[in-house]
Amino acid sequence: MAKQNITPRAEDYAQWYIDVVLQSKLADYAPVKGCMVIRPNGYGLWENIQKTLDEMFKETGHENAYFPLLIPESFLKKEAEHVEGFAPELAVMTHAGGKKLEEPYVLRPTSETIIWSTYKKWIQSYRDLPILINQWANVFRWEMRTRLFLRTTEFLWQEGHTAHATFEEAEEETLKMLGVYRNFAENFMAMPVYVGKKTNKEKFAGAVTTYCIEPMMQDKKALQAGTSHNLGQNFAKAFDVTFQTKEGKLEHVFATSWGVSTRLIGGIVMAHSDDNGLVIPPKLSVIQAVWIPIFNKDNQEKITGKVKELTQTWKNEGIKFKIDDRDNYKPGWKFNEWELQGVPLRIELGPKDLEQNQVVIARRDTNEKVAVSFENVTQTVKNLLVTIQNDLFTKALNFRNDNTFVTDDYKFMLKKSDEDNGFYKIHWCGNRACEDNLQEMGKITIRCIPLNNEQENGKCIVCGEASKERVIAAKSY
Amino acid sequence: MAKQNITPRAEDYAQWYIDVVLQSKLADYAPVKGCMVIRPNGYGLWENIQKTLDEMFKETGHENAYFPLLIPESFLKKEAEHVEGFAPELAVMTHAGGKKLEEPYVLRPTSETIIWSTYKKWIQSYRDLPILINQWANVFRWEMRTRLFLRTTEFLWQEGHTAHATFEEAEEETLKMLGVYRNFAENFMAMPVYVGKKTNKEKFAGAVTTYCIEPMMQDKKALQAGTSHNLGQNFAKAFDVTFQTKEGKLEHVFATSWGVSTRLIGGIVMAHSDDNGLVIPPKLSVIQAVWIPIFNKDNQEKITGKVKELTQTWKNEGIKFKIDDRDNYKPGWKFNEWELQGVPLRIELGPKDLEQNQVVIARRDTNEKVAVSFENVTQTVKNLLVTIQNDLFTKALNFRNDNTFVTDDYKFMLKKSDEDNGFYKIHWCGNRACEDNLQEMGKITIRCIPLNNEQENGKCIVCGEASKERVIAAKSY
Repeated sequence: MAKQNITPRAEDYAQWYIDVVLQSKLADYAPVKGCMVIRPNGYGLWENIQKTLDEMFKETGHENAYFPLLIPESFLKKEAEHVEGFAPELAVMTHAGGKKLEEPYVLRPTSETIIWSTYKKWIQSYRDLPILINQWANVFRWEMRTRLFLRTTEFLWQEGHTAHATFEEAEEETLKMLGVYRNFAENFMAMPVYVGKKTNKEKFAGAVTTYCIEPMMQDKKALQAGTSHNLGQNFAKAFDVTFQTKEGKLEHVFATSWGVSTRLIGGIVMAHSDDNGLVIPPKLSVIQAVWIPIFNKDNQEKITGKVKELTQTWKNEGIKFKIDDRDNYKPGWKFNEWELQGVPLRIELGPKDLEQNQVVIARRDTNEKVAVSFENVTQTVKNLLVTIQNDLFTKALNFRNDNTFVTDDYKFMLKKSDEDNGFYKIHWCGNRACEDNLQEMGKITIRCIPLNNEQENGKCIVCGEASKERVIAAKSY
Repeated sequence: MAKQNITPRAEDYAQWYIDVVLQSKLADYAPVKGCMVIRPNGYGLWENIQKTLDEMFKETGHENAYFPLLIPESFLKKEAEHVEGFAPELAVMTHAGGKKLEEPYVLRPTSETIIWSTYKKWIQSYRDLPILINQWANVFRWEMRTRLFLRTTEFLWQEGHTAHATFEEAEEETLKMLGVYRNFAENFMAMPVYVGKKTNKEKFAGAVTTYCIEPMMQDKKALQAGTSHNLGQNFAKAFDVTFQTKEGKLEHVFATSWGVSTRLIGGIVMAHSDDNGLVIPPKLSVIQAVWIPIFNKDNQEKITGKVKELTQTWKNEGIKFKIDDRDNYKPGWKFNEWELQGVPLRIELGPKDLEQNQVVIARRDTNEKVAVSFENVTQTVKNLLVTIQNDLFTKALNFRNDNTFVTDDYKFMLKKSDEDNGFYKIHWCGNRACEDNLQEMGKITIRCIPLNNEQENGKCIVCGEASKERVIAAKSY
């Protein structure tokens, strides 16, 4: 079998990533700076991500809505930290219908401002709370350095925006959605994550607290994969959104927001794929099993007929499969193609298999092949899909654990991280200066302060001041 | 029961429409010119529209993808008719990341140009054809006069863009998708449509032929509800997209595009709703049946317990229902609220009903009420949902037929249309001058030349020249 034309990870990880994304037809470059075209293979993955998350959002009481893309420039300026954070990367529309606009509009970098200007109309009393709204939308952040899926000037995401009567309720919502993200990352993306709080330096512009999920990629860097923010009363104050409490007092409303984006697709690629192309967890695969009947003109009908017979119940059983019975491509070419596209299981059925009442099933993740009798094929496929999903998670977890270091030795960390990235559990005093030092010395950031973190007395790895707990530090995307 | 605060249709149809949309919380005005906020009630309807159409698209072999919102201004200019059609209503982005852009981007008014500039990379040989792609996206048309859902500067839609090896294949695709739209409009929206071809004057800017579906609204005006275009080789030529045929020749690729938008929500409102609020066809309702238990503190548990018992199997049976057991609102208020929001069935269960082992079911569309025994409630609800769906279609069909006139008398048509709108089946010579005359004299446009139209010799209603068939003419949105 011919190998794919993909740069090996060991040779050039960044190029490997681009090769996999382009050659597996997840995405293509667009004729617009920093934008991409999400091709059907990539969009199908996004649809599965959307469907799964959307069900989770609805089960937790949220409804979808849609707010305008365009935001009056003045809205952004109403929350001081928010505008400071987003101003450098705004895309601005100045003309429409042949005329210059009186006030420019920005293309939403995130929707807190337009949504809270609207919530002002909808919220008067505690009876109007909570509001639990999510939106699926495109957003714009004019970044200088872009990378397919990981950082593009336009990307697709969901953004939840909720309104509550108390800080505690908002905090509960923030953590609930963080839990949804964790569940999704670990149980669907098969991607173990550290879950915790961002430092003040790293939090969302306008948030009181930002929580995040942080998985390790195969190059041992971190990917910020999802964030959930307790916004306190910051946006309610900026847009003067008050409500009458049960006791008849007037108070500002409490807010949360939370989001994940098409960046998750980049995460799937970087967490599981290999030098032969994509590896996709079965729960998110558009095609879970591809049948490749091996035939010539004489036995084509008999062999593809058998495949159809064997898969008769599969649609009802929820197995997503495809029969690749094209006769203008050879089996070897097809093997390659579906390997590149990351389909978890390949099932071969040739004339000899037919004689022996068996098929051959090959796993994408391990390359293991097994012959299975016709009567056992459906159950074996079902079992293997579960096994692969679990194995991918375990493999990623072991990889992360093997590359996470508990250390108090700054020199060791800088050297090791410079050579080979990795996650570091370090003591940190809580001061911005030491955080800046980590970044200057080793491009290392504090990814999160883990939730329910073990308390342990120690000394800041940079300055030696007292610390009560370890944080997760790493280079990141 | 208190009446809703909605302007009656007979008094002011345009205001009635706005009142219904705002008060039923389908949408709200946004702080951006001509834009709207689609609220959860409206977005839920859009999700049902999306889900149904998306399944139909996939069943006919299409895949979803996503192309950038931003289109280099020069792309629009490559197809002469296309730029002429869209130039007056473009939204233009000139600045990003704090700098002026070298070339401005337009916010897509439709995506033919960006998509065909990409298809050029993907198509070399007949083996690469057909490409059958659809995209769900937001689009921008900077219209001067806007109206919630019917015409907004930003709207949501789907746009199919397919590529084919022959004109005939493209024509087949164009008509296939027109058939999908007709099926959706009639069997899901309960909205009978005329199906036909647009005149040259009315066709899409850049199309060879535009087909459309045209329903009648309750004010007897037409709503262009969906279009399907055979684009011939126009965009392939503009972007130089060629392919090698089986015979080894080089030829330009053939294209189609087809779309429906959030305008359909306006269509649902205007086709079925009444002076008490929304009426939504059961197949698209987010909630098909709302239970209103009538209780006091003493019997609350017993009554709501019975409701839960009666609906135990409903989720599995696919009945979308809600139990409104809020105790801070009175039953009368709830009746009003759910009537306003267009839920097809209301089910009441009070203490007397409990004694008699029955519920009372009220139809939103006819106000008919019927007492049904506990054991028959599930089946009755299922039957009624089918009945309502059919009745809404029949009612709309009868209404359209009653207000469609076959006429050869121009004066009659102008007078009648001026007084009361209506559809007119008229002879037309095929000349633009007569079409312009209809518009000048009576704001009437030719909505379509029906498919499989009966051939009949006659004279153009305007100029008297020979005509072979009748066309559908009407005022429209």
